Amino acid sequence: MRRSPKPSPSGPHHEWSTRVYYEDTDAGGVVYHARYLHFMERGRTEWLRSLGFQQHRLEQELGLVFAVRSVQVDYLRPAVLDDSLTVRSSILEPRRASLIFQQGIFRDGQLLCQGTVKVASLDSESFAPRPIPDIILQATIAGVPTP
Amino acid sequence: MRRSPKPSPSGPHHEWSTRVYYEDTDAGGVVYHARYLHFMERGRTEWLRSLGFQQHRLEQELGLVFAVRSVQVDYLRPAVLDDSLTVRSSILEPRRASLIFQQGIFRDGQLLCQGTVKVASLDSESFAPRPIPDIILQATIAGVPTP
Amino acid sequence: MRRSPKPSPSGPHHEWSTRVYYEDTDAGGVVYHARYLHFMERGRTEWLRSLGFQQHRLEQELGLVFAVRSVQVDYLRPAVLDDSLTVRSSILEPRRASLIFQQGIFRDGQLLCQGTVKVASLDSESFAPRPIPDIILQATIAGVPTP
Amino acid sequence: MRRSPKPSPSGPHHEWSTRVYYEDTDAGGVVYHARYLHFMERGRTEWLRSLGFQQHRLEQELGLVFAVRSVQVDYLRPAVLDDSLTVRSSILEPRRASLIFQQGIFRDGQLLCQGTVKVASLDSESFAPRPIPDIILQATIAGVPTP
Repeated sequence: MRRSPKPSPSGPHHEWSTRVYYEDTDAGGVVYHARYLHFMERGRTEWLRSLGFQQHRLEQELGLVFAVRSVQVDYLRPAVLDDSLTVRSSILEPRRASLIFQQGIFRDGQLLCQGTVKVASLDSESFAPRPIPDIILQATIAGVPTP
Repeated sequence: MRRSPKPSPSGPHHEWSTRVYYEDTDAGGVVYHARYLHFMERGRTEWLRSLGFQQHRLEQELGLVFAVRSVQVDYLRPAVLDDSLTVRSSILEPRRASLIFQQGIFRDGQLLCQGTVKVASLDSESFAPRPIPDIILQATIAGVPTP
Repeated sequence: MRRSPKPSPSGPHHEWSTRVYYEDTDAGGVVYHARYLHFMERGRTEWLRSLGFQQHRLEQELGLVFAVRSVQVDYLRPAVLDDSLTVRSSILEPRRASLIFQQGIFRDGQLLCQGTVKVASLDSESFAPRPIPDIILQATIAGVPTP
Repeated sequence: MRRSPKPSPSGPHHEWSTRVYYEDTDAGGVVYHARYLHFMERGRTEWLRSLGFQQHRLEQELGLVFAVRSVQVDYLRPAVLDDSLTVRSSILEPRRASLIFQQGIFRDGQLLCQGTVKVASLDSESFAPRPIPDIILQATIAGVPTP
């Protein structure tokens, strides 16, 4: 279920697919609105992983954690049980100690939900803002795994 | 489960309290970011309930459902295990077939997280937009239970 | 958030109520089966809290954590949106480093779901089994808050 | 991430892999105990899917739903963030209107958690027990996709 980051007019992006299970749905018969934030987080995590970074190792080895600072999500069409969804992620704006992701969730190429998520880089002890390591920033912007 | 809609300079609002349990937290030691959307939804639901409306009855009796159309959330400070949180909800703007809620999540009077949530009123069969029944709109704006 | 440990033929027990929200339901129109484990854990947590113990303080002050070792749950009748559920907890068997809870989830006095949950007391650093402090064991068995 | 059911001494089984994300963990630094039920349900769902059955279609086309009747889970070792977990499912006992699954969750071949889950076949309208269609029963027992 991993897919490779591809260059795009607006820079590198990453696509990753996931399924809708009962756990994701609610009694309205559709995916519960907060669950799309989970899907988006999985997408960002798998992007990092595809570039060679795992979050528990970033914390253990560099004392670095990422924390969500803000989200903005528009819900356009509902996803339902058994749907195969693709999370498409790109970086709208890299900053010194934060990244702004643009993320869309698609079913068969149709956009269901789109969001902008600001993630801050923090020291895992003090929770103070911390510059994103160059190696991560470069890999993310270039969209290629680190050697 | 406490609720007490009070008049405020900016109109009626509703307050409701909930606890943070292990289920709400993540390995970062804080509340998982998507969970605040759950807390906000519980706050809106309890506001409606305090005004005399239950969502499963609105659906069964009026064929009316509410669906989240967009959310915007800023995360200011993390909540942690065992925190008692207060969800404060007010209506920023009532429209014909939607409501825009402003919601804040507080711990001991300190704002941890704030959000703007647009909720649309839909026909439960066709999912087409549907005017919010006057009785709900009036109660929500007045902030008092229906007689 | 109501609690009232009462003596019973089989010893003290604790009751605590919670609501069913959209987040708890699935596309089958009922509460998702894993959510009852959340409700049971909230019930155990509120029992401890009513006796004067908070889990984050047990960890910080005593280096003690509780971990679920096994669960056995029977699902008898489904709960649905907006239900008010009561979690009834009692201790089937206190041991040196673990507690076996019997828990039932009721709606209007009718049993919907029942479970047996074994919780172990562990050292928060080594995760080795650790005797439950007498003060907790006595309070739990007696079913009264510590002075 | 799908893999094929393989014959084994105890009959056909199915293996499927999933990742641990922040959403799955709690402030104890490990996977929240109720989440393993989600993983097990995903495993059963993917087994059905690999045999050619999707749950939303079973409901729409046959008026058939599966409901969890009981679970028994033993937690042996904790899973943590970023773990790749394998869910191994087999059928302990097929009955007329229910299936008893035995499921194990493994990391690098080591068993972390094991469970027995009884799932009943129900009419989606009346919720009355209903025989499992032969085509599903045969495929599940044979462990091969339907032609």
